[in-house]
Amino acid sequence: MRWAVILAGGSGTRFWPLSTPEHPKQLLPLAGSTSTAEEAVDRLAGLIPRERILVVTGAALAPQLQEKLKLSPDNVLVEPRAASTAPALIWATSEAQRRDSDAEVLSLHADWAVGDAAAFRRTADAALLTARQYQRLVTVGVVPSRPETGYGYIVPGPPLGDGARMVARFSEKPDAATALDLMAAGALWNSGLFAWTAERLLQETEAHTPEVAPHLPALRSGDVDRFFREVTPISIDVGLLERSDAVAVVSGSFAWDDIGTWQALTRVRPKDPHGNVVIGRGFMHNSSDCVVWAERDMVVLSGVQDLVVVQANGRILVMPAEHAASMKQLLDALPPEIRDTSS
Amino acid sequence: MRWAVILAGGSGTRFWPLSTPEHPKQLLPLAGSTSTAEEAVDRLAGLIPRERILVVTGAALAPQLQEKLKLSPDNVLVEPRAASTAPALIWATSEAQRRDSDAEVLSLHADWAVGDAAAFRRTADAALLTARQYQRLVTVGVVPSRPETGYGYIVPGPPLGDGARMVARFSEKPDAATALDLMAAGALWNSGLFAWTAERLLQETEAHTPEVAPHLPALRSGDVDRFFREVTPISIDVGLLERSDAVAVVSGSFAWDDIGTWQALTRVRPKDPHGNVVIGRGFMHNSSDCVVWAERDMVVLSGVQDLVVVQANGRILVMPAEHAASMKQLLDALPPEIRDTSS
Repeated sequence: MRWAVILAGGSGTRFWPLSTPEHPKQLLPLAGSTSTAEEAVDRLAGLIPRERILVVTGAALAPQLQEKLKLSPDNVLVEPRAASTAPALIWATSEAQRRDSDAEVLSLHADWAVGDAAAFRRTADAALLTARQYQRLVTVGVVPSRPETGYGYIVPGPPLGDGARMVARFSEKPDAATALDLMAAGALWNSGLFAWTAERLLQETEAHTPEVAPHLPALRSGDVDRFFREVTPISIDVGLLERSDAVAVVSGSFAWDDIGTWQALTRVRPKDPHGNVVIGRGFMHNSSDCVVWAERDMVVLSGVQDLVVVQANGRILVMPAEHAASMKQLLDALPPEIRDTSS
Repeated sequence: MRWAVILAGGSGTRFWPLSTPEHPKQLLPLAGSTSTAEEAVDRLAGLIPRERILVVTGAALAPQLQEKLKLSPDNVLVEPRAASTAPALIWATSEAQRRDSDAEVLSLHADWAVGDAAAFRRTADAALLTARQYQRLVTVGVVPSRPETGYGYIVPGPPLGDGARMVARFSEKPDAATALDLMAAGALWNSGLFAWTAERLLQETEAHTPEVAPHLPALRSGDVDRFFREVTPISIDVGLLERSDAVAVVSGSFAWDDIGTWQALTRVRPKDPHGNVVIGRGFMHNSSDCVVWAERDMVVLSGVQDLVVVQANGRILVMPAEHAASMKQLLDALPPEIRDTSS
């Protein structure tokens, strides 16, 4: 049967001062009126039932996620530590298999904005069918709308059948010129939406992922703590998908964004005629291409362009939108008592 | 005896959203830790006693000013309507004369920042002595520190004596090139600090100010309402000083600023090494020449220059510092429910 694994870890510092360790990005209503995590579950409606949705997260967020996503406690998998995506997905897949020996798994993230849920479901359905029929690890490649340098790209190879193709190679976070070349050559964004049968994923892990494979017996014996203590953190892309020759790609044409920065809200939220996105109360006067998040006060911008202005958690942040991708540099510079919005 | 007349009307919209009709500029601690109106009174200590300080304002602000400035109710003169500076100063001067037939008057404004109170008092003393000895209307010209286009200039003429000179002419709000020429030619800023004997001011008014003179009998009969109803609003500069040939100038070298805009705070407040002025809690990261007024939240600026960022009265304003002089255009564009911070 079909299972979904939603990765919902991550501290979401890129949305400071709105995001906090207690309310990271995936629990914020960034793309709409509900959190992206709730949207991720709702988007699966009709494709995978809630009883077969597993969420992987840390201990701090587990209670909130269980409640918000209306999941059984058994379906919230609490990582003993964050160890990147390969251990998390391999664990969750093996857990699905434990409950359902014939499990096939769709893996996704809790912090996405998706423009067309029906197109998303059609593509996910195709990916799951391809994974089963051709026994491949199936990536979903999103048709790029811009030469984004912050994403990974998938270069499709020979046709596999039913519209799917093999993957020729991956290209992670290319420079601007390379991104343009990749786009022109028909490369697709590596969305992180994957499909596989549990059996096949574990076979490929045994064959290609020495960082994780030797510790699978710990999982089989139910010792999740030991598994996470002993694995080497590595991403599923680097640790498996880039190494295996059994990786296919199905293309999807839905709008997809991982909402990586404040500036991303200009892509996933409605804009005024001057390109401003205002969440909360705001008045834009001779201002363009700004992002405003106003928790409480009325924000008035006058004569400014390309700014991010955020009021949240007792902080007001003003920065150029193009700097939003460098949030870490700012957070590193902030004294803890300013950065920590609970103080 | 010496009297002071402090003009304390004005709605102070230029400091929106901090300034409000109930708390206009002169009641805000813009230049220091107390309001500029309190500073104006304190600055006169040793020169003119509080019992001979008259404050002219509107009905809405009178109670606050009386309390804050610790004045007798008799010393707060409530204008029935705002009619520019000539009617206000002529009324207050005639009121001083009514209480003291030999009154001499120092006129000043409640919204100034002055760098050196002792130098201010020395100059005011010289202006009062000149007014008495030479029977002139005496202006105080401040040595300019920049070719400011927002101020009026006084071009000094022939020497009068004791360092005072006659006024050759006034030049109001020159363009940038003219301001440079005026500065090079030794012109002085027209500060609005004036001195005269009551007798001489009223004589000159009779001779030169038909907008006000015919209504002086109403004042003499104590009918202030009628006086203000019948006068034509006009400034003391245009209505009298630019017309009279009995106008002298005493120069002052104290730092003086009328704090006309948010940007003016960069001149009257301490700056960090990158030229930022922060009142309230703020953290400046790779940012320069910004003005921050933070009523409650911690303001974090990152990678921005020359911005004004104000949080006050439930509003957050972000604008380029150079636009601060055009506040009226913004306020005209704001819907009343946003502009009116009491809503």
